[in-house]
Amino acid sequence: MLDSVLAYLTQHREEHVEWLKALCRIPSVSTKLERRADIVAAAHWTRDLCAQIGLNATVHETPGHPLVFAEWNAAENARTILVYGHIDVQPEGKLELWDHGPFEPTVRDGWLCARGAADNKGPLLAHLRAVAAWLATHGRLPINIKFLIEAEEEISSPNLAAFVRQQRNLLRCDDVVISDTALYADGWPTITRGTRGIVYKELRLSGPRQDLHSGSFGGTVANPASVLAAFVAGLHDADGRVTIPGFYDDVQPPADDERAQLAALPFDEQAYAQQLGVPALWGESGYSTTERRTVRPTLDVNGIYGGFMAEGANTIIPAQAGAKLSMRLVPGQDAARVSAAFDACVRERIPPTVRADIIHHGMCDAYLAPSDSPAMQAARRALVESFGREVALLREGGSLPILPMFQQVLGADSLLIGLASPHCNAHGPNEKVLLADLDRGAVALARLYAYLG
Amino acid sequence: MLDSVLAYLTQHREEHVEWLKALCRIPSVSTKLERRADIVAAAHWTRDLCAQIGLNATVHETPGHPLVFAEWNAAENARTILVYGHIDVQPEGKLELWDHGPFEPTVRDGWLCARGAADNKGPLLAHLRAVAAWLATHGRLPINIKFLIEAEEEISSPNLAAFVRQQRNLLRCDDVVISDTALYADGWPTITRGTRGIVYKELRLSGPRQDLHSGSFGGTVANPASVLAAFVAGLHDADGRVTIPGFYDDVQPPADDERAQLAALPFDEQAYAQQLGVPALWGESGYSTTERRTVRPTLDVNGIYGGFMAEGANTIIPAQAGAKLSMRLVPGQDAARVSAAFDACVRERIPPTVRADIIHHGMCDAYLAPSDSPAMQAARRALVESFGREVALLREGGSLPILPMFQQVLGADSLLIGLASPHCNAHGPNEKVLLADLDRGAVALARLYAYLG
Repeated sequence: MLDSVLAYLTQHREEHVEWLKALCRIPSVSTKLERRADIVAAAHWTRDLCAQIGLNATVHETPGHPLVFAEWNAAENARTILVYGHIDVQPEGKLELWDHGPFEPTVRDGWLCARGAADNKGPLLAHLRAVAAWLATHGRLPINIKFLIEAEEEISSPNLAAFVRQQRNLLRCDDVVISDTALYADGWPTITRGTRGIVYKELRLSGPRQDLHSGSFGGTVANPASVLAAFVAGLHDADGRVTIPGFYDDVQPPADDERAQLAALPFDEQAYAQQLGVPALWGESGYSTTERRTVRPTLDVNGIYGGFMAEGANTIIPAQAGAKLSMRLVPGQDAARVSAAFDACVRERIPPTVRADIIHHGMCDAYLAPSDSPAMQAARRALVESFGREVALLREGGSLPILPMFQQVLGADSLLIGLASPHCNAHGPNEKVLLADLDRGAVALARLYAYLG
Repeated sequence: MLDSVLAYLTQHREEHVEWLKALCRIPSVSTKLERRADIVAAAHWTRDLCAQIGLNATVHETPGHPLVFAEWNAAENARTILVYGHIDVQPEGKLELWDHGPFEPTVRDGWLCARGAADNKGPLLAHLRAVAAWLATHGRLPINIKFLIEAEEEISSPNLAAFVRQQRNLLRCDDVVISDTALYADGWPTITRGTRGIVYKELRLSGPRQDLHSGSFGGTVANPASVLAAFVAGLHDADGRVTIPGFYDDVQPPADDERAQLAALPFDEQAYAQQLGVPALWGESGYSTTERRTVRPTLDVNGIYGGFMAEGANTIIPAQAGAKLSMRLVPGQDAARVSAAFDACVRERIPPTVRADIIHHGMCDAYLAPSDSPAMQAARRALVESFGREVALLREGGSLPILPMFQQVLGADSLLIGLASPHCNAHGPNEKVLLADLDRGAVALARLYAYLG
């Protein structure tokens, strides 16, 4: 049965590339209000494609941008997977940085270049290609499948959680499958097992009622920027560890086999530093660079401000200074508890010479999928067979609040099958996707359905 | 002789208030290009007044705004003083914060309110009132007098030093007299003996080539804002002392009698903190608040910036972070040496995980006039007799580069006789001057000329 499905994918490759081009031509930038009609057009186009390949598809309105729900539900007593993806894209940024129009998809050297090609239109369509191949060749799928395709991912999915909660029966599933992560390298099949959580705070310190002349008043009042600097500097010790009391208390260390697997991945520290443009790497003692960005919690200053920030010189003592600080969390850590620990640390460390205000910008827990679930085993087999090499099992350093949310509301773990290149320039100019990886991905997904069924 | 001069001042008080009102009606805002015609009008008005009272007066062009030079030179073998003042003013700021138009001078409860009334039109005109009284009553002055009146003080006098150097013969004098400082309290005669110097630096740290995703890269590279915070925090020790090696090496401690005099001045720490709106005062251990703001060197952050500084949250590791840092210097310290010490400190303390750039925004030395010069003695006597109480001898925490410049180019020390109220709102809304202080000031200056003659 699988052979004819895979043959169909090969035969219809050009048609499927045209799908991607068509969707990439729609400038569905969710951050821009004036693109609302394009967002709606992308949703309708996606619904129509779903219907055309044989799914029941509907556009659902939300308080924000619409989302598309599609399903095929006729495999009795079979597993049900929910594919999540998004059709909205980041703004195109500066046009002069693009080699051609960001919404004029262009194929060169096997790469399709366009805004959204990698994030997330190409990888999402790989799933629809696999479904189309099954339904066209056999009229049925080995499993039940649902698609939840939103158009607000790039603006932090403000309406997704409420929709999932309201429609938990419609969305009921055994596994969530998502292709919105990256491959470890082009052609190297990759499953992302986990993401870090986040607690995002802003600390604002206030000293004098207004900016003061630093000559007339310098030496008599605490400078909020200096007090802020001392607090920020004190958040790390000499070993690069976060000093907030209790921060590491609940950290689940990675299993020995995961550490071994991470250590076995090829990683060139010098090339990494060069690519980022930093004179040297830095981080917590006792962990490799790969570990520090995935399985260890961190704290970063995301922004710092205060006083005179324009060009030139102005001799003031700032009335206020602030810092945006976010902590990345790993499994075991409770975001609410870390948030409280941060607040307590501020109360304890900020001296009485200034007033401190904490703004809470949001948080979510880390997520880690079980490594031995049926879905994980089926996916590894499908990927190995389709890409011809062993799967890289990774964790991502970023945060995906939808993963703990799906776990909590639907009771389903997420399987993150990356299809985008690590060099895809998502969010940047000349975003691109390697078509061969999408082809291999569609094949792997067609296999995954078979092995799960 | 002096009696008739002082009687003249009393008789012509109303006329002299009208001078001030007329000058305050000219919106001579030097920062605004569109006010150029007003600046020129103010210069011409001032020249005409100088000529009217009997001085030889000329408008001199500079590469920027013009300045006025005026003199009376007929007292052979007598001392020559050079009065420096300025007729340009700060921008008016937000009009809604003013009780009336900033250029519609209004008298209420003995205060004249207008932009420039205190800084520096009122105090400057007090000198011309004293000159007018002498010339009107006796046809001569007991001394020779020169006026150097510029229109670029509020934009840091970019052309003054060059003019003084070019015209050093024209400007030759024994003493410089300036009334552009504040009284210690209304009605309390005050001489400012010194000003602090300044070294103004900007430190910019660069890490990654561009802002990085703090999830994907957090924990692997040094965050420039964190490194900056550690550097800034390390610039002070727990006693509030500056930690730059050599910073205090050449500091001249205040003489015992100056410390005693400062300690004897009434100063309410609680009222001071309340006025500034700070929860507590802060500064170097071992010195009073008054000492810390005048006779001790300090270091302040004037601005700090990096990464995402707008409203909301953005999860980046900043590519750059920077701080504007200025040091106030006291007599003995050499600005160039402190500047070099700061640079060396940056080189020593910034780790190799980031690149450091230092921008030099300018510097000047501190200034301290001798306390026992003939000019100082004459001024103290004149002020005590005119205000009816002992003179407060102070130092100002701010910096006046023109004082060391006059010292260097003309070889003359400066006598800073404050006539503005400490609550005059210079640079702010509702700037005002107490007319009684200007009256007492004009009387004191008329006496000063006699005692110097």
